[in-house]
Amino acid sequence: MPYGDAMSGTRVRGVRGEERRAEIVRAALEVIAERGYRGASMAAVAERVGLTQQGLLHYFPTKDALLVAVLKERDQWDAVPDTPWRLDLLGSLVEYNAMRPGIVQTFSALLGESVTEGHPAREFFTERYGRVRGVMAEVLRAEYGERLPSGLSPEQAAPLLVAVMDGLQYQWLLDPEGVDMPGAFRDFLVLLGEG
Amino acid sequence: MPYGDAMSGTRVRGVRGEERRAEIVRAALEVIAERGYRGASMAAVAERVGLTQQGLLHYFPTKDALLVAVLKERDQWDAVPDTPWRLDLLGSLVEYNAMRPGIVQTFSALLGESVTEGHPAREFFTERYGRVRGVMAEVLRAEYGERLPSGLSPEQAAPLLVAVMDGLQYQWLLDPEGVDMPGAFRDFLVLLGEG
Repeated sequence: MPYGDAMSGTRVRGVRGEERRAEIVRAALEVIAERGYRGASMAAVAERVGLTQQGLLHYFPTKDALLVAVLKERDQWDAVPDTPWRLDLLGSLVEYNAMRPGIVQTFSALLGESVTEGHPAREFFTERYGRVRGVMAEVLRAEYGERLPSGLSPEQAAPLLVAVMDGLQYQWLLDPEGVDMPGAFRDFLVLLGEG
Repeated sequence: MPYGDAMSGTRVRGVRGEERRAEIVRAALEVIAERGYRGASMAAVAERVGLTQQGLLHYFPTKDALLVAVLKERDQWDAVPDTPWRLDLLGSLVEYNAMRPGIVQTFSALLGESVTEGHPAREFFTERYGRVRGVMAEVLRAEYGERLPSGLSPEQAAPLLVAVMDGLQYQWLLDPEGVDMPGAFRDFLVLLGEG
């Protein structure tokens, strides 16, 4: 879904800066999904939104600055304002993700790259995963108390919950017909003790 | 652990072609771990083994040919000849992986990149994951028969087993001090019904 076609002539000049930034972030998401972050170029992002490279640098002075905006955008999508996470909501999130392969692809590619040396997203992901494990432990504690039916503590089960979500995304992206991501995640909830 | 230093002068010329190829594959593993496949260059691999680029092309005519050799090397490591996999052996494999972060890093980076458009490793991973899910279903069937204690079938649990192994690798690579990968995997075996 490239945005370049819609971006021409007078319409562009009327768009407010904030909307323009949002368009650029969406275009960067697409380019990263296609080529990974290391393979993505500012030129490709600029072309997709109908800007010159110089024009793009006005909004994001470096590729890393654009990456940070992309990663922050992700966390906004996943946030559910004023609603504490619950296990059944996680199932809905996985179902929702199955309808947006481009976004899942972008972040799966970025997560993979982030473990290479000196990658600019590494610190973001390290901090994020620590935080997400903590949130998931609280979700599990709210559901099961101090012990899950299996005897595991919420802190023991939390990294497994996160790992299953990430790992299933790779299997599903590689073989969307062969892997039922939301169904497999519901099966994991059964393992935890649901239903 | 670069190999360049050990590779100089007369010693190189006496090394047999097969050993030389193995050295090149190991060097490629390191370079991919550091920079990802898209960021890796044949020049960097050549330098690490003390070859000219022209010399490297004698062994591997293209970067993709080298990648295929790297991926085949992986499957040789994971194979346990004449021994069918068992759940407890998988626990040992995860413990072993925790002692070789470079190799885990290489393949986690490649798996992440493989979901980007037209990546040369994509077909390899798609085929491999289909096969591995089948093997894991057989492992689970040998252990539990047609139903796990949770009521899941071996075919339902297999993608979860694979997802946990992959997902934990990312969490561990990002935070080796904070994530006990082998311990978390043993916890997953408890969820499945072990112990």
